[in-house]
Amino acid sequence: MTIQAINVRNQFKGHIREILRGDVLSEIDVQTAAGIVTSVITTRSVDELGLRVGSEVIAFVKSTEVSIAKL
Amino acid sequence: MTIQAINVRNQFKGHIREILRGDVLSEIDVQTAAGIVTSVITTRSVDELGLRVGSEVIAFVKSTEVSIAKL
Amino acid sequence: MTIQAINVRNQFKGHIREILRGDVLSEIDVQTAAGIVTSVITTRSVDELGLRVGSEVIAFVKSTEVSIAKL
Amino acid sequence: MTIQAINVRNQFKGHIREILRGDVLSEIDVQTAAGIVTSVITTRSVDELGLRVGSEVIAFVKSTEVSIAKL
Amino acid sequence: MTIQAINVRNQFKGHIREILRGDVLSEIDVQTAAGIVTSVITTRSVDELGLRVGSEVIAFVKSTEVSIAKL
Amino acid sequence: MTIQAINVRNQFKGHIREILRGDVLSEIDVQTAAGIVTSVITTRSVDELGLRVGSEVIAFVKSTEVSIAKL
Repeated sequence: MTIQAINVRNQFKGHIREILRGDVLSEIDVQTAAGIVTSVITTRSVDELGLRVGSEVIAFVKSTEVSIAKL
Repeated sequence: MTIQAINVRNQFKGHIREILRGDVLSEIDVQTAAGIVTSVITTRSVDELGLRVGSEVIAFVKSTEVSIAKL
Repeated sequence: MTIQAINVRNQFKGHIREILRGDVLSEIDVQTAAGIVTSVITTRSVDELGLRVGSEVIAFVKSTEVSIAKL
Repeated sequence: MTIQAINVRNQFKGHIREILRGDVLSEIDVQTAAGIVTSVITTRSVDELGLRVGSEVIAFVKSTEVSIAKL
Repeated sequence: MTIQAINVRNQFKGHIREILRGDVLSEIDVQTAAGIVTSVITTRSVDELGLRVGSEVIAFVKSTEVSIAKL
Repeated sequence: MTIQAINVRNQFKGHIREILRGDVLSEIDVQTAAGIVTSVITTRSVDELGLRVGSEVIAFVKSTEVSIAKL
C-alpha cells in the first residue's frame, strides 16, 4: 500500500544519525536541514520499518502538537 | 517567572509569518530555518502572549509526538 | 514524493463519511471496519489533500497517544 | 469513583493479547474488532490497573491525535 | 457501559467554570484544586456529554503529554 | 536563551519527588499543589536539564491534550 500524502503539515526530511534502542521505545535522531529532530517510537516499529543509521526518513508532527514560546 | 530551559528537544526558532485566527483555536505559521512550521494553539493564548505577524518565537514539540515515515 | 511506510502502528482504512468544516480546524469522520473514527485536522490540510465525502483514507494514530480504560 | 462517560470519541473495545513490559513504559496490544490496537502506557499504570493478557479493556484516543493519509 | 478506571495518572477533579463554544472544537475551563485546567474537545463531545457550566468532571492527561520546564 | 512565556495554559509548579530512570524514557513525578503530576520525558532530557529529586520545575501540557470525563 502506497500513501500519496498525509495531512501532517510539519514534515522534516533527513537521514537517521543515531538510534538509541530501548526495550519498548527507541529514540531516533534525524539529521535535517533544521538540525536534529528527535522522535520516540516503539522499538517494534524500528524493526518493522528496518530503520538504521543512514536511512532516509521524514520526521513529521501534527500541528496541534506544536507549542509556541515567546522570546 | 522566567523559564531557564524546557525538556523539549525539538525547538525551531523563527518569526511568525501568518496567523489564521479562529473562534477557539488559531493557526500560527512560523518561518524557521527548516521552512514553515505550523502550530495550532488556543486563540486566548495568542492574545495572552500578544502574538502578531513578525513576533520572534520558538515552535517546539515533544519527541514522543514525532512520527517517522520511510522513503 | 511517495511514502513507503510510516511507523504508526494503529492504522484504520476507510472512507470519509462526513466533514464538519470549521474556520481553522475540521472534523473528519471516517467509516472503518471498526466503526467511525473521528479525526481533527486543519481545514487547510482538508483542502490541500482534496478530502471530500467518499475519499479513501487511512486514519492513523501513534501508540503513545492511545490510553487504556479497564471495564 | 465511577466514570460515566469520557469525551473521547474513538473507543475500541477488546481484550489484551500481549503486554511487552518495559522498565518505565509498556506496550499493550489490544485485540479489537478493528484488528490490533497498540497502546503505550507507564508500567506503573499496568500494575495499578492490574492489566494482564485477557483483560477486557477499551483503547481510546482523542480526535485531535488522529491523522489522515490519502490513498 | 461503566468504566472502572483509566490508565491516565494525571486526573484533576473539578467543575466546569466556562465553556467557549466553537464551530468544531470548544474550550472547557475546569476549576480544580490546582487552579484552572483548560481542555479543548470537539463541540460534538460537549453536546453528547451534556456538559454545561457547573458540571462535575475530571480533566485528565496522559503522562507522555506532560513536559517539564526548569525554573 | 531565556523564554518569556509559553502558550501552554496548563502549568503546574512544584518540585520533583521521584525520578524513575529508564533506558530511553524516564518518569518524573512532580509534587504540586494539585497533587502528583506525572511526566514522561527522554532520559537524555533529564540529564541535559540536570533534573534530580528536589529540583523546582513546571509541569505543563497543551490544552488539546486534556480530556474530559463526566462523573
